[in-house]
Amino acid sequence: MKTWRVYLSGEIHSDWRERIEHGAADAGLPVHFDSPVLDHENSDDCGVEILGAEESNFWRDHKGAKVNAIRTRTLLSEADIVVVRFGDKWRQWNAAFDAGYASALGKSIIVLHDPALTHPLKEVDAAAMAVAEEPDQVVDILRYVIRGEL
Amino acid sequence: MKTWRVYLSGEIHSDWRERIEHGAADAGLPVHFDSPVLDHENSDDCGVEILGAEESNFWRDHKGAKVNAIRTRTLLSEADIVVVRFGDKWRQWNAAFDAGYASALGKSIIVLHDPALTHPLKEVDAAAMAVAEEPDQVVDILRYVIRGEL
Amino acid sequence: MKTWRVYLSGEIHSDWRERIEHGAADAGLPVHFDSPVLDHENSDDCGVEILGAEESNFWRDHKGAKVNAIRTRTLLSEADIVVVRFGDKWRQWNAAFDAGYASALGKSIIVLHDPALTHPLKEVDAAAMAVAEEPDQVVDILRYVIRGEL
Amino acid sequence: MKTWRVYLSGEIHSDWRERIEHGAADAGLPVHFDSPVLDHENSDDCGVEILGAEESNFWRDHKGAKVNAIRTRTLLSEADIVVVRFGDKWRQWNAAFDAGYASALGKSIIVLHDPALTHPLKEVDAAAMAVAEEPDQVVDILRYVIRGEL
Amino acid sequence: MKTWRVYLSGEIHSDWRERIEHGAADAGLPVHFDSPVLDHENSDDCGVEILGAEESNFWRDHKGAKVNAIRTRTLLSEADIVVVRFGDKWRQWNAAFDAGYASALGKSIIVLHDPALTHPLKEVDAAAMAVAEEPDQVVDILRYVIRGEL
Amino acid sequence: MKTWRVYLSGEIHSDWRERIEHGAADAGLPVHFDSPVLDHENSDDCGVEILGAEESNFWRDHKGAKVNAIRTRTLLSEADIVVVRFGDKWRQWNAAFDAGYASALGKSIIVLHDPALTHPLKEVDAAAMAVAEEPDQVVDILRYVIRGEL
Amino acid sequence: MKTWRVYLSGEIHSDWRERIEHGAADAGLPVHFDSPVLDHENSDDCGVEILGAEESNFWRDHKGAKVNAIRTRTLLSEADIVVVRFGDKWRQWNAAFDAGYASALGKSIIVLHDPALTHPLKEVDAAAMAVAEEPDQVVDILRYVIRGEL
Amino acid sequence: MKTWRVYLSGEIHSDWRERIEHGAADAGLPVHFDSPVLDHENSDDCGVEILGAEESNFWRDHKGAKVNAIRTRTLLSEADIVVVRFGDKWRQWNAAFDAGYASALGKSIIVLHDPALTHPLKEVDAAAMAVAEEPDQVVDILRYVIRGEL
Repeated sequence: MKTWRVYLSGEIHSDWRERIEHGAADAGLPVHFDSPVLDHENSDDCGVEILGAEESNFWRDHKGAKVNAIRTRTLLSEADIVVVRFGDKWRQWNAAFDAGYASALGKSIIVLHDPALTHPLKEVDAAAMAVAEEPDQVVDILRYVIRGEL
Repeated sequence: MKTWRVYLSGEIHSDWRERIEHGAADAGLPVHFDSPVLDHENSDDCGVEILGAEESNFWRDHKGAKVNAIRTRTLLSEADIVVVRFGDKWRQWNAAFDAGYASALGKSIIVLHDPALTHPLKEVDAAAMAVAEEPDQVVDILRYVIRGEL
Repeated sequence: MKTWRVYLSGEIHSDWRERIEHGAADAGLPVHFDSPVLDHENSDDCGVEILGAEESNFWRDHKGAKVNAIRTRTLLSEADIVVVRFGDKWRQWNAAFDAGYASALGKSIIVLHDPALTHPLKEVDAAAMAVAEEPDQVVDILRYVIRGEL
Repeated sequence: MKTWRVYLSGEIHSDWRERIEHGAADAGLPVHFDSPVLDHENSDDCGVEILGAEESNFWRDHKGAKVNAIRTRTLLSEADIVVVRFGDKWRQWNAAFDAGYASALGKSIIVLHDPALTHPLKEVDAAAMAVAEEPDQVVDILRYVIRGEL
Repeated sequence: MKTWRVYLSGEIHSDWRERIEHGAADAGLPVHFDSPVLDHENSDDCGVEILGAEESNFWRDHKGAKVNAIRTRTLLSEADIVVVRFGDKWRQWNAAFDAGYASALGKSIIVLHDPALTHPLKEVDAAAMAVAEEPDQVVDILRYVIRGEL
Repeated sequence: MKTWRVYLSGEIHSDWRERIEHGAADAGLPVHFDSPVLDHENSDDCGVEILGAEESNFWRDHKGAKVNAIRTRTLLSEADIVVVRFGDKWRQWNAAFDAGYASALGKSIIVLHDPALTHPLKEVDAAAMAVAEEPDQVVDILRYVIRGEL
Repeated sequence: MKTWRVYLSGEIHSDWRERIEHGAADAGLPVHFDSPVLDHENSDDCGVEILGAEESNFWRDHKGAKVNAIRTRTLLSEADIVVVRFGDKWRQWNAAFDAGYASALGKSIIVLHDPALTHPLKEVDAAAMAVAEEPDQVVDILRYVIRGEL
Repeated sequence: MKTWRVYLSGEIHSDWRERIEHGAADAGLPVHFDSPVLDHENSDDCGVEILGAEESNFWRDHKGAKVNAIRTRTLLSEADIVVVRFGDKWRQWNAAFDAGYASALGKSIIVLHDPALTHPLKEVDAAAMAVAEEPDQVVDILRYVIRGEL
């Protein structure tokens, strides 16, 4: 039986990933979840920590973002489904970038956000197969898509 | 002689496109520029205006975003170079989405933004061939890339 | 300036193509339209007429359908936009086949049909960038997409 | 040994899938079969049931068709062989859409239909590797293709 | 108006290319024809003549075949339609190679051969959109495909 | 450890496949071999036997060749290495077709033939990574490629 | 859990591969490493040893380089990450060739070299996700990319 | 008539490009030549000159190499033929990188170098359609490939 690969992109400061993963586990769904590195500090530091310090913030961020991209690009391109979560804080341009990247690769995208964000996210939503507000809805979609159950 | 195709994505409330287009014209560069529809109101209204009114904001936005995507996806995928401009206002998730989309298609990306945005844009910058602060720098890149002149 | 390529697939027994083509011409839009062969008899006879008679209807249809596919696959794969029209008669499986083919190639699809067909066409509509009821709406989309005008 | 992936698209109101699956199992063929969701009601309701009610039928169908597409596009694109069954009822435009989609992806297509449908299905048949009338013939093809046995 | 690109592969010892090219010119069809180098001696000698003599026949042939491949692969991959002609002499493995190459690229293939060759060419014919016996039939197909005329 | 997939195309009237398979087994190489259906009669009859008799030889061959293509295209496109054997009898256009098909897919090709066939096979050899005369050489290549041993 | 595929290209005269492989093993990382054939003599001799002697050095090298390419192209194209090591001796054009090849395939590249080589390697470094000086840094990147640990 | 696109990569300190361009012009060949920026100083300075100074040599080179890559990747990917010249000085890793990049894109490659470099360039030569020693031979290949003349 196929194990579905689901990549969980976006917001790292709430428990939406856990809720989806627990929901899928409780339902016994054959899903493997991947994510970016969720430790914010490590994610910011990885470039300079491993490859050497930088004086300028630009190159510090640049080195880190590229090391992170080794992970994110690889896992995102192997996913069947990409869930992109937008929270109410921060710019979250990396989440929108991931959505565009996934869209060009022809992935099935599920966007997860509060209705208050509908207008600024309309281009992202337009590229998606589903727009949900709650993690439970993502679990419901996975259960339906994999098993046909409502 | 090749005419270079450059797609100008992002911020629509400042004159950065004009500055790049005028700069390229003044330098006599063989470049054709494309952009999304820049009339904000038309861009928001096109879906319901053409295809019929919607009661919910979500579907109103959805119809419009998809009609706009006919233009943006087509022109973006034909570009040699995609310039993505981030301003100091709004969420601009569509700009980041375009950057991700262009990146997955293997386009050469130039990001244009104020240094103050370096940290939140680090993933976008990491996918770019150049990160500029001023429209003139984009013109300089085009002149160098096309003619080898500094 | 780019000439947009638009492929008009589907129903051949009404004047919807003429209405779109005239509308686009009246608006002075830079669009080149392509279509399958619209002469129904020629379309049915081309295989046996050119390559030799067949006793069985299956091979008669088969030879013809393949000769037609030389045209349709080529033009469809060169299009920026594929308009697929479903009328109220016939099975029109070739129109739905074209829509699926265009979708897998990543084309922007506009579906044109009466609201009465919404339910059986839901999978086709779901793959489209716009669903219209009247040819004039397709002209309006082209004008907006190309010129940004409403 | 390779497990062949076969996607069974189309008609959901007769037992043709069971006949193929049982035939393949009886022959001990290493085949994994996939299908769209076969519960008609769930298939119609999934969008609104999971993502929230809609007043208009169009959006109701739209949300459902997209959720279903997450499943169908994924499984169809992983298949080695796509069998498309056309029955004697309904429009079955989704079946023809799947055939077009599979064709553009270069899949081996087997079409399964009554000879009475030959003329309207000629474009679909022309894209196929085999046109069968009975499920048993599909089993015979699988046995021959996998084991070389007649 | 689109100029169709047609690549004429295979037999170089009869006048079938001239007959097709004249037929298309007489009909005023917008077709550009390409072919491999038709001067047999030059085709055999080009490698050693340009790049230096070889003692072994294997390397002599190898160098020539690769120089020829620069032309054939480029033109074949740009064609809309590939016509492959098999005559009654020689092995003509290069013609069958071209057919396989064109098939994997998704080109529309027309095979041109005497019915006596049907059995040994069945795999090539099975990959074609049309199988013709006379050059005039190829002209007829081009006229129909481009203009819809029989 | 990777299992290498090797597709053995071409001549079906000598024991070259067995010699390669036994040689690889004796060396304990992690290789999975695939081939077309090697029962000549079944290969010729499969179309009409399964899908119904045909009066004309052309359609008899056509139906069979397409059913065989389901197997050959699938396995060939999954191979890491494609070995194509040309013997001293028959036209073997299907072998040359497979070589062209494999070449366009970017497969590593090994051609196996007597030096007497060098000139007519020069285009096929030019697309290959190795040209061998004996099955043992193919085993030696596999051992070297997989284990680095001479 | 995913096993990451890492291809180690370049210098074969120091122990950098062992240091990376041991480091990854010590950290318990789920990585499978591939490399070109590391026995220099075998790598030079494989063509003539298996396929027959050559008088000219050019063809001797040519036959060997192609047999090696069967291995290197296959494994490189299956890798998630390609590490390319440049040492202080030899031309190492094959390493730079591999880097270009990997870059066009969209692989994540890590370049490993002494800072003294920065200027001549700038084009290779510009295509990489990370530029390291020591094998331990590559292990650190793998640990971070796979487990998020610094 | 087709204008052939030829990209001239590699050595910038001898007159080999001029010799090829003049030879092609003298022969009246329909060829458009492209090259990287040939002004060595501009090529080294473009990054910091346009985008701002850098303290470290690494980032100075990095910014420049990426700006250059906008040009080289674009033109190289549009070429029909890529000529790569290796001289007797410098590391020339960018030339080998271009060759690998072109090879993965399926371009026809011609390598131009002194026989003294045969051994270290064997992997690059093995990916080429022709290996020449003098610019005149490249002109001869172009004349033959385009016009069939020796």
